[in-house]
Amino acid sequence: VTTENDFVRQLKRRFPVLPPVEIGIGDDGAVLAPSSSRTIVVTDMLLDGVHFDLRNTSARLAGRKAIAVNLSDLAAMGCRPTAAFVSIAVPQDLPDSFTFLQELYQGIEEFTARYSMTLAGGDTNSWRHPLAINVCLTGTPFGTAPILRSGAKPGDVLFVSGPLGGSLLSDRHLTFDPALPLSEWLCANTDCRAMMDLSDGLSTDLARMMEASGTGAIVDAAKIPIHCDVDCSWTHDRRLAAAVGDGEDFELLIGVNPADAVMLSNRAAEAGFWLHPIGEVLSGAGCQIRNPDGHIQPLFNMGWQHSM
Amino acid sequence: VTTENDFVRQLKRRFPVLPPVEIGIGDDGAVLAPSSSRTIVVTDMLLDGVHFDLRNTSARLAGRKAIAVNLSDLAAMGCRPTAAFVSIAVPQDLPDSFTFLQELYQGIEEFTARYSMTLAGGDTNSWRHPLAINVCLTGTPFGTAPILRSGAKPGDVLFVSGPLGGSLLSDRHLTFDPALPLSEWLCANTDCRAMMDLSDGLSTDLARMMEASGTGAIVDAAKIPIHCDVDCSWTHDRRLAAAVGDGEDFELLIGVNPADAVMLSNRAAEAGFWLHPIGEVLSGAGCQIRNPDGHIQPLFNMGWQHSM
Repeated sequence: VTTENDFVRQLKRRFPVLPPVEIGIGDDGAVLAPSSSRTIVVTDMLLDGVHFDLRNTSARLAGRKAIAVNLSDLAAMGCRPTAAFVSIAVPQDLPDSFTFLQELYQGIEEFTARYSMTLAGGDTNSWRHPLAINVCLTGTPFGTAPILRSGAKPGDVLFVSGPLGGSLLSDRHLTFDPALPLSEWLCANTDCRAMMDLSDGLSTDLARMMEASGTGAIVDAAKIPIHCDVDCSWTHDRRLAAAVGDGEDFELLIGVNPADAVMLSNRAAEAGFWLHPIGEVLSGAGCQIRNPDGHIQPLFNMGWQHSM
Repeated sequence: VTTENDFVRQLKRRFPVLPPVEIGIGDDGAVLAPSSSRTIVVTDMLLDGVHFDLRNTSARLAGRKAIAVNLSDLAAMGCRPTAAFVSIAVPQDLPDSFTFLQELYQGIEEFTARYSMTLAGGDTNSWRHPLAINVCLTGTPFGTAPILRSGAKPGDVLFVSGPLGGSLLSDRHLTFDPALPLSEWLCANTDCRAMMDLSDGLSTDLARMMEASGTGAIVDAAKIPIHCDVDCSWTHDRRLAAAVGDGEDFELLIGVNPADAVMLSNRAAEAGFWLHPIGEVLSGAGCQIRNPDGHIQPLFNMGWQHSM
């Protein structure tokens, strides 16, 4: 039996305290230095049997995904991560809960090390039910301000940062790399008007961005990149529906000032990033899709919404 | 069935966005204004069957406790709350999950309204297991800097903010008011060297504060205030063990500069706060208790530690 005190001491040794964090694990709360920039806070809770399945997912990948989906939110805000807060409800019936937590924190350490962010706090409890992990991250804008969902303007060009669909059937939702490097490049190199990450599918998430911006959008079916994780034996319509509706892609959806958009894909490619123009922001409301034959129809909400 | 979009829209209407929060619910993350003060972050996860029991606890009290324990952490840091982030794993088998969440958020609203803090983000998922609630709060110091556990110095006088013990047998752990008003008063009126909240019992928590400060302590058994929730028919020794070991009191443990300590209880009482001097910080290590007969013994670790 390892006590809470021992566990906290071990985490303090394993995770260094780096600026802007001044006080990390071990007090009643963490302390971040004063900042002339805004502070951005994101949070997501991941549940065994919902967001991963520990029967065929390692504790390391579960911990990794819990951090990665939150980093994807920070990327979507145009922000660099600064500190992580990890709360865990650990099942009591694990054969070796100490090893389990060690492995889970390996998945977290992969990103805290890569992005020089501090594991600055958290809470660990055990119970007789499945694993639940909540991650809360703080971040700071790459540029002068965060990029919101609400900034899209009619005429902006819509891009996605990678091919879509099939993430949950493959292991991509567990192993993806959050688009932080692209987010940093975009903030430095283009007039990004609006950004969000694709977690619930392009059809759902694009509708959210357009609603927040008070705009509509049209996308070209032929331009939506379909991921190779989507079954090649399916009809094109079914493959397109998967790309638009599957969710958990964790690619960025970006609205760019049209003045910047023309050469953006090429310039991004030179920097090592793929950007796919898929459509355009319109005045009005609602999202539409243009088929290759020119026929336009509503981009039905094929994405996944958590129902209560 | 209420969709996630509807639910988020309703929360946005119910919880106003107040400074320093600039962007609250509805984007990928929340945005807090730049600050010349430090930002403090606290987090705690509460689980049905561990921290409350929904068979005899309302959703409102569960939500209330989830915020209150985190506010208690901010009080312990000498900080005012600014924003709340609430993640909830909702059981799928509830007869009416919509009403359940409404009631849970009533418990949260009690404190967001009282302290003018913004519910600025969160995450809600459903699963086939008991309720889990994670709360993460940001705060800002009442004074120029947060009060840490590590600042106690030999000679400091130790105070507790109220009587101890029996919290879990009564409903006090669900209905307590976090000591934020006292914390603000202390920051303005005395040289507070070290502070923490008593969640795991005085014997455990005092040992943590002294370890963090590199000091020891001695407390007077006769001065430890025993809560009336502790059964009066028990022997004094058993009642004292409850006061020192029960946990979930959520009172403050405070180390005060001895120059300020003499009149502190009286001055606090004039301001409407109870402060009980219980002992003194010593050089060296370890915590001891002085019995009324003058006999000194180790303050055994009678508090509750989460075992893994």
